[in-house]
Amino acid sequence: MTNDQLKMTNVGIVGAGGYAGVTLLSILLRHPNVKVVWLMSEEAHKGKNISALYPQMRGICDLTCDTLDNLDKQLVSVDLIFLALPHGIAINYVPKMIKAGKKVVDLGADYRFHDEAVFKKWYNLDHPDKAVLAEAVFGSPELYKEQIRKARLIGNPGCYPTASILGLAPLIKNKLIDTGSIVVDAKSGVSGAGRGVNLKVHYCERNEGVMAYAVNNHRHMGEVSYQAGLLAGQPVNVTFVPHLMPMTRGIHATCYGKLISEKSKVKIEELVKLYKEFYKEAPFVRVYETGEPCTKNVAGTNYCDIALSINSESQTVIVMSVIDNLVKGAAGQAVQNMNLICGFEETTGLKAIALYP
Amino acid sequence: MTNDQLKMTNVGIVGAGGYAGVTLLSILLRHPNVKVVWLMSEEAHKGKNISALYPQMRGICDLTCDTLDNLDKQLVSVDLIFLALPHGIAINYVPKMIKAGKKVVDLGADYRFHDEAVFKKWYNLDHPDKAVLAEAVFGSPELYKEQIRKARLIGNPGCYPTASILGLAPLIKNKLIDTGSIVVDAKSGVSGAGRGVNLKVHYCERNEGVMAYAVNNHRHMGEVSYQAGLLAGQPVNVTFVPHLMPMTRGIHATCYGKLISEKSKVKIEELVKLYKEFYKEAPFVRVYETGEPCTKNVAGTNYCDIALSINSESQTVIVMSVIDNLVKGAAGQAVQNMNLICGFEETTGLKAIALYP
Amino acid sequence: MTNDQLKMTNVGIVGAGGYAGVTLLSILLRHPNVKVVWLMSEEAHKGKNISALYPQMRGICDLTCDTLDNLDKQLVSVDLIFLALPHGIAINYVPKMIKAGKKVVDLGADYRFHDEAVFKKWYNLDHPDKAVLAEAVFGSPELYKEQIRKARLIGNPGCYPTASILGLAPLIKNKLIDTGSIVVDAKSGVSGAGRGVNLKVHYCERNEGVMAYAVNNHRHMGEVSYQAGLLAGQPVNVTFVPHLMPMTRGIHATCYGKLISEKSKVKIEELVKLYKEFYKEAPFVRVYETGEPCTKNVAGTNYCDIALSINSESQTVIVMSVIDNLVKGAAGQAVQNMNLICGFEETTGLKAIALYP
Amino acid sequence: MTNDQLKMTNVGIVGAGGYAGVTLLSILLRHPNVKVVWLMSEEAHKGKNISALYPQMRGICDLTCDTLDNLDKQLVSVDLIFLALPHGIAINYVPKMIKAGKKVVDLGADYRFHDEAVFKKWYNLDHPDKAVLAEAVFGSPELYKEQIRKARLIGNPGCYPTASILGLAPLIKNKLIDTGSIVVDAKSGVSGAGRGVNLKVHYCERNEGVMAYAVNNHRHMGEVSYQAGLLAGQPVNVTFVPHLMPMTRGIHATCYGKLISEKSKVKIEELVKLYKEFYKEAPFVRVYETGEPCTKNVAGTNYCDIALSINSESQTVIVMSVIDNLVKGAAGQAVQNMNLICGFEETTGLKAIALYP
Repeated sequence: MTNDQLKMTNVGIVGAGGYAGVTLLSILLRHPNVKVVWLMSEEAHKGKNISALYPQMRGICDLTCDTLDNLDKQLVSVDLIFLALPHGIAINYVPKMIKAGKKVVDLGADYRFHDEAVFKKWYNLDHPDKAVLAEAVFGSPELYKEQIRKARLIGNPGCYPTASILGLAPLIKNKLIDTGSIVVDAKSGVSGAGRGVNLKVHYCERNEGVMAYAVNNHRHMGEVSYQAGLLAGQPVNVTFVPHLMPMTRGIHATCYGKLISEKSKVKIEELVKLYKEFYKEAPFVRVYETGEPCTKNVAGTNYCDIALSINSESQTVIVMSVIDNLVKGAAGQAVQNMNLICGFEETTGLKAIALYP
Repeated sequence: MTNDQLKMTNVGIVGAGGYAGVTLLSILLRHPNVKVVWLMSEEAHKGKNISALYPQMRGICDLTCDTLDNLDKQLVSVDLIFLALPHGIAINYVPKMIKAGKKVVDLGADYRFHDEAVFKKWYNLDHPDKAVLAEAVFGSPELYKEQIRKARLIGNPGCYPTASILGLAPLIKNKLIDTGSIVVDAKSGVSGAGRGVNLKVHYCERNEGVMAYAVNNHRHMGEVSYQAGLLAGQPVNVTFVPHLMPMTRGIHATCYGKLISEKSKVKIEELVKLYKEFYKEAPFVRVYETGEPCTKNVAGTNYCDIALSINSESQTVIVMSVIDNLVKGAAGQAVQNMNLICGFEETTGLKAIALYP
Repeated sequence: MTNDQLKMTNVGIVGAGGYAGVTLLSILLRHPNVKVVWLMSEEAHKGKNISALYPQMRGICDLTCDTLDNLDKQLVSVDLIFLALPHGIAINYVPKMIKAGKKVVDLGADYRFHDEAVFKKWYNLDHPDKAVLAEAVFGSPELYKEQIRKARLIGNPGCYPTASILGLAPLIKNKLIDTGSIVVDAKSGVSGAGRGVNLKVHYCERNEGVMAYAVNNHRHMGEVSYQAGLLAGQPVNVTFVPHLMPMTRGIHATCYGKLISEKSKVKIEELVKLYKEFYKEAPFVRVYETGEPCTKNVAGTNYCDIALSINSESQTVIVMSVIDNLVKGAAGQAVQNMNLICGFEETTGLKAIALYP
Repeated sequence: MTNDQLKMTNVGIVGAGGYAGVTLLSILLRHPNVKVVWLMSEEAHKGKNISALYPQMRGICDLTCDTLDNLDKQLVSVDLIFLALPHGIAINYVPKMIKAGKKVVDLGADYRFHDEAVFKKWYNLDHPDKAVLAEAVFGSPELYKEQIRKARLIGNPGCYPTASILGLAPLIKNKLIDTGSIVVDAKSGVSGAGRGVNLKVHYCERNEGVMAYAVNNHRHMGEVSYQAGLLAGQPVNVTFVPHLMPMTRGIHATCYGKLISEKSKVKIEELVKLYKEFYKEAPFVRVYETGEPCTKNVAGTNYCDIALSINSESQTVIVMSVIDNLVKGAAGQAVQNMNLICGFEETTGLKAIALYP
């Protein structure tokens, strides 16, 4: 028996019918240490073959979709469960999974906040099981790798927060910018809104249609601010404005912050060096010395590409941070967390090169 | 002889082969008080019918393109000239036009700055004729309508500055925000880069490809800062980051500024009211009471749609300002200026409704 | 009182909430001989301002939407009614309108077929009032202008049939091709599917997603075949395959037909001449002598642009025919029909130049 | 030493700066049996790191580009060479490679035709070395797998021909359709035109811009006809019309052919069965029993997805065949051919699942 076979992990995916879910499935089907044992999705998908929902799966995967109604029965066959669900559902099922000794990576928002008051402020929900919440780890491997390695429950970061926090963390941790001045202007592809249908995702409404939305009340503003606060060691209120772009995949977060006066002479080369140092153990963060990152450069990959600039007249640092919202912003990061939890090499199954052009 | 015939103006277009030029032609061909007498474009277009360059013109316009080499000969037949050229060319021809008694609307950058040092800083050029420069008026009718009415030379604003300054002017003029804190995060359709070919405008590079460019050195940063400074009555350094979007037309400028402390209690309703008051004589500015503006809402029109929001925790005002970069950001605004110069109704020829979807 | 005022026509639009409806509204608001008196839409839109549904209408039109429930009350105030509805609804209301002495242009399918059996085959519906059906005229001004001038009820052609029939008519009428060999491969923008939401029109499903649909059972195959048969003087079965393109507006119909053997020596120049002759009274058909038509060339206009080619080895004529599906394929053609019915100049209100790029 | 190491093959890529070249590089960098030893591209790229041309390669590959001038020196280090060049260049270098004992997969057109007269008709070129031409095999593994296995020089099929011929082969080989009636209406993403810049690939010209091009004179018409003729055992003239779509990747070939009269009763189920049988040894052809294939279903993969329909009234078979033009239509198929030549499993390195959405 080889080392690889020893490490084979059985997983189930809840929420396989969504874009994050099917992206997860695609990665896991090619992961050498994983066997996908079952899929769950919404009631309307029950009994349907995944290739009926996603024709690209024809000839590749013919699992059928079950629902959470059968969780008890299905739990026994897996070691680890991924949940890719709207917020507020996972909290009703995760405690049972944890108690059954399973590992859990939750791609939703339910386990991203340790502070219940903050969670309640943004999601208007109470956690039924505080003990389970208490052991959740925020699944940002670039910031919390050691905690993740020991965890059994991961709150996988949101897509906007992933791009924003990776862009801002070195500045905040090193106290280079005035945290009261932070602005994140984020641009997202339409897939961030999910596969559900509504006028906002209608092709004809988005094509040639750039617009801001959820200004000052997007829940990811809460997540970015909360995580920024943890890094700063004090509360931070980030100004966060998300925009819909006429594209399918990708997030471009442009982050702005005023240099604190003692740091007003910092040079761009020093900043780049500092970022490279900060991310030296992060295989998926690429810090640019020249050029600006484009969402295409990371399409289909788990990379976060970052470039920096300083406006010396206004003393403003500009950070450009791009990810694929469905990979590093969701499914890829979830697999990265799984790799850490399960003791696999961090990059296993995640070595895709961007599909370019 | 009717009133309309009396007012008929003969115009020539220099730079008709570009996107701004052909947009101008399209508007002017339907303008009741204008006759387009000739077109000029680059050497390679000489002698070509405009419909060979732009097949949508078949059966509509069959003017052929001349070049600036024949300006002397062509000057006599027109009352007013539009120039839609890269910077640095117009300064060599406009003085002669003005001296010949012609009116001029320059869509390029050459006559947007009265301060030669600022112009030189951003464009590295000297003006050969200071007297002509001195009489140029910055063609923003919402800010300088009376001066425009009396002018004979207009420096038509750039596309990014149009969206940015219209978004910021009421805040700056009313001293509501700290001008040192202004950030403009601007998103543009690809047509802003013109019809010339290069890798940046290749379909396959832009589709799914959002990226910042010219960070901290885009010339429109100079124009926005200069105009903001005029409004503020003191120098202003705006942090300005332009981004390329995968779309053809439209600019979405998201503007951020910190409320000055005395104004920290200002309510959103008051701000909206102040904007409406500021733009009460501006037929092409629409201030939203609810909702966010989308680039589609103004496609093909001369409107600038503006919405506002306040992040009370960070004391930041957010202004969303959208235009069609080729219309309000170029050709439409040029016609609006022509209407004012020539004594026509300001909106003549500019009543198009957005092509939606 | 001027001639224009004499001719002012009051109209109502049923189905104003859809893409064809709002396109119609946009054209009519700028039509010099028309006053739009009321709008009707679906129940969910009742009482809503049109600018709440379509923000581009802010400051331009503030009519609110009524529903067909109030038709009796609203009928008196108009001279002519446009209906832009899914098939099967108009037949329940049009007879009453006609009996009340109103003119009607129906953009739906209900009055496009005189042969009830054919209509029933494709739509599975019976006409409640055969007399009204009998007086309907198929609203293709290029083919039936004189009948339209005398009509009071128009069945406005479908979008695909408009592009296809205009492309094929000269070949069929002149018996140049074997009608048994006709293939129409049609490519449409997503707006042809309407504003209703479903997975097919989700941005993420259509972007980068070209596919055929409704192969061999699209209702427009029935309409194309029926109209081709009328032109041929005998039944025709066109092979028709529609495809969805990742774009908003436009149809490109590529039509193929084998030359009948006696015509095997026909030259392309002769064909072009024949087309130009055939459409010499058609202000909106542009026959190209060189080059291929692009959907962009007609975007936002009422033009149908046509180019021709002959594959001499396979004896196949290829016709490329492009329209804007919402203008010439729906609202524009409807206004063209209204102009003819009401005695206005055929092109009134329809002189837009393509929004390019 | 393991089996895998034994099989490690050293390869060079000529034309790495193009879209097909970089796609090839991406696949080969993840291929377990291949080492990419060097890259060559055009003069302007000489000495540049591949990640300077393609930023997605940062941190993944840092090979620099050489040019064909150094072929002699570089030849010794590789076992197999891929060429991804415009036609007419490879013929000057391939004979030397073959004589040096190297295997060659040419992605260009130079070795796709055994009949020199046909090659000359379409490309106006003579082959300098007929012996080398004589041993080339047309690299369509679904049709010529055994010959490929024994070959050392492959003429990799063009993108349009791949989709078209795979769609038509079972019909032609089984003499089901009249080969004189074949029409292929092909729709391609813009990447098929390569990375070179010109107005046709300008974002603003293609977005919302569907058009036919090279009607009746596209070189791939020659390739499709030639290959169809080989399958039919007699000359075939296919009517072939390519169209540019506003998308980056993918080809949708819609193929039409009249059933010969003896086959007029064939049922769709029989056709589907026949296709499945025909492609039973083809791991990358997926024949659909229901539904239509979408270009998205194969994006980034080596699949060719095929669906069928019969118009019984016109006795026409319709075949919808989709591929990713850069993978199955170029680089993926080239790797598939390499796998066969080198004795690797046919699907090695080609198991990607479509990036969806």
